[in-house]
Amino acid sequence: MEGSFMNDVIKTIQQHRSIRKFKNTPLTQEQIDTIVRAAQMAPTSGHFQAYSIIGVTDAGVKKELSKRSGNPVIETCGYLFIFCADLYRIMTAASDNEKQQMKNNVSFAYFNQTSVTDTALAMQNANLAAESMGLGTVIIGGINGALPDLDRWLDLPEYVIPLAGLAVGVPDEHPEQKLRLPQSAVFFENKYNHQLKASVASYDKEMELYYEQRTNNKQKSNWSQKVIHMLTSDIPIEFYTDYIKSKGFALK
Amino acid sequence: MEGSFMNDVIKTIQQHRSIRKFKNTPLTQEQIDTIVRAAQMAPTSGHFQAYSIIGVTDAGVKKELSKRSGNPVIETCGYLFIFCADLYRIMTAASDNEKQQMKNNVSFAYFNQTSVTDTALAMQNANLAAESMGLGTVIIGGINGALPDLDRWLDLPEYVIPLAGLAVGVPDEHPEQKLRLPQSAVFFENKYNHQLKASVASYDKEMELYYEQRTNNKQKSNWSQKVIHMLTSDIPIEFYTDYIKSKGFALK
Repeated sequence: MEGSFMNDVIKTIQQHRSIRKFKNTPLTQEQIDTIVRAAQMAPTSGHFQAYSIIGVTDAGVKKELSKRSGNPVIETCGYLFIFCADLYRIMTAASDNEKQQMKNNVSFAYFNQTSVTDTALAMQNANLAAESMGLGTVIIGGINGALPDLDRWLDLPEYVIPLAGLAVGVPDEHPEQKLRLPQSAVFFENKYNHQLKASVASYDKEMELYYEQRTNNKQKSNWSQKVIHMLTSDIPIEFYTDYIKSKGFALK
Repeated sequence: MEGSFMNDVIKTIQQHRSIRKFKNTPLTQEQIDTIVRAAQMAPTSGHFQAYSIIGVTDAGVKKELSKRSGNPVIETCGYLFIFCADLYRIMTAASDNEKQQMKNNVSFAYFNQTSVTDTALAMQNANLAAESMGLGTVIIGGINGALPDLDRWLDLPEYVIPLAGLAVGVPDEHPEQKLRLPQSAVFFENKYNHQLKASVASYDKEMELYYEQRTNNKQKSNWSQKVIHMLTSDIPIEFYTDYIKSKGFALK
């Protein structure tokens, strides 16, 4: 970490890895409260605080959610938070006239994007707070495989959309850290550098070694192969737009 | 902070306030590097790392951006990062055939949302790393007031959209902290609580006191009045959807 400042916050950030194997230890109420309080202190656009957090402890819901998201961690973690973008709460404080105008504004993509941003900022605070207490975490985007049923299970109203799960628990593995892209491919001064092929290729070489040598799930691949594969797959994503629109975020 | 765990990470998270007055001290290269490294360690969906960060030091761009976003902090802070959702980088590694299929997939709202989420997670890491070093920060969503010209100034290609600015510097103020919503209005176990009026009303009372008593910009208002005002205003937001679509995120 040459040329880089160090303290406990930066150390926690730098030690991040996703944990997918947990000990059979539920979180304490104190840990849950600390994580939620941390989430709430994140910056938020216009002080909207446009998110809600659902703690899922219902075994039946976790079982079904685990199946539908293809992620067993949902059942084995110490606690599961679902982070939702939420513009419903503020509507409960509005008059009927105001509500109509709000619904019109919220039907534009802009407010979908700001509420998603608010939610992600809060989720990363929660994530770091958990990690700082020695807990392991993994963010589970795959919960969208349970949409729209997840709405019914969690009783989510219009203008509330689950963004991701945050599974937290006592780690029962210490996986290798996944290398990040070289700084030269991500951080630019004043002008975006369109000449990215060389730095991506050198990263691909590093990632090829990582996938070959890591402890679990060794494979022959690299970064761009994997991402391109995901982005060229014939994956069902239309449903997601339909779902968002059905919740009032019309993306106009 | 009764019933809540404490360490340096949680302390940094809990001490967050937005800083809008900075000393005339530029960030050091070590501070900038530390912040960028922190951003890059955030969790990322499918290891996409779907963001780029532009450090803006060009005085002309900062002046124009400050004017267009209505935010003088852009010129007075110690360093300005612009966090962009980025699915262009990965396209530079793809064949023409792959690129066509990727462009089709990325035209769905799902990938706009995952790249925005990636970007916000990275931004919050950057934010906390800066705060942990004693620096002050403020996230500036208002940079979208400079769209689409900002693209030209920063030379941003298709599939790269600026999400927000992160202004960082040596704080020259110590504002009161803005209270957050009560936990009972944000965090629910298993089922969303639709009965939010009472907890929002009690929060509004607290926020009314805050706005009356705070040092700067005292006013008679409360939380829901302010948010409802923003969400019922006749603000120009159509342009934002047009802009996103023009960059390849068709929100299909």
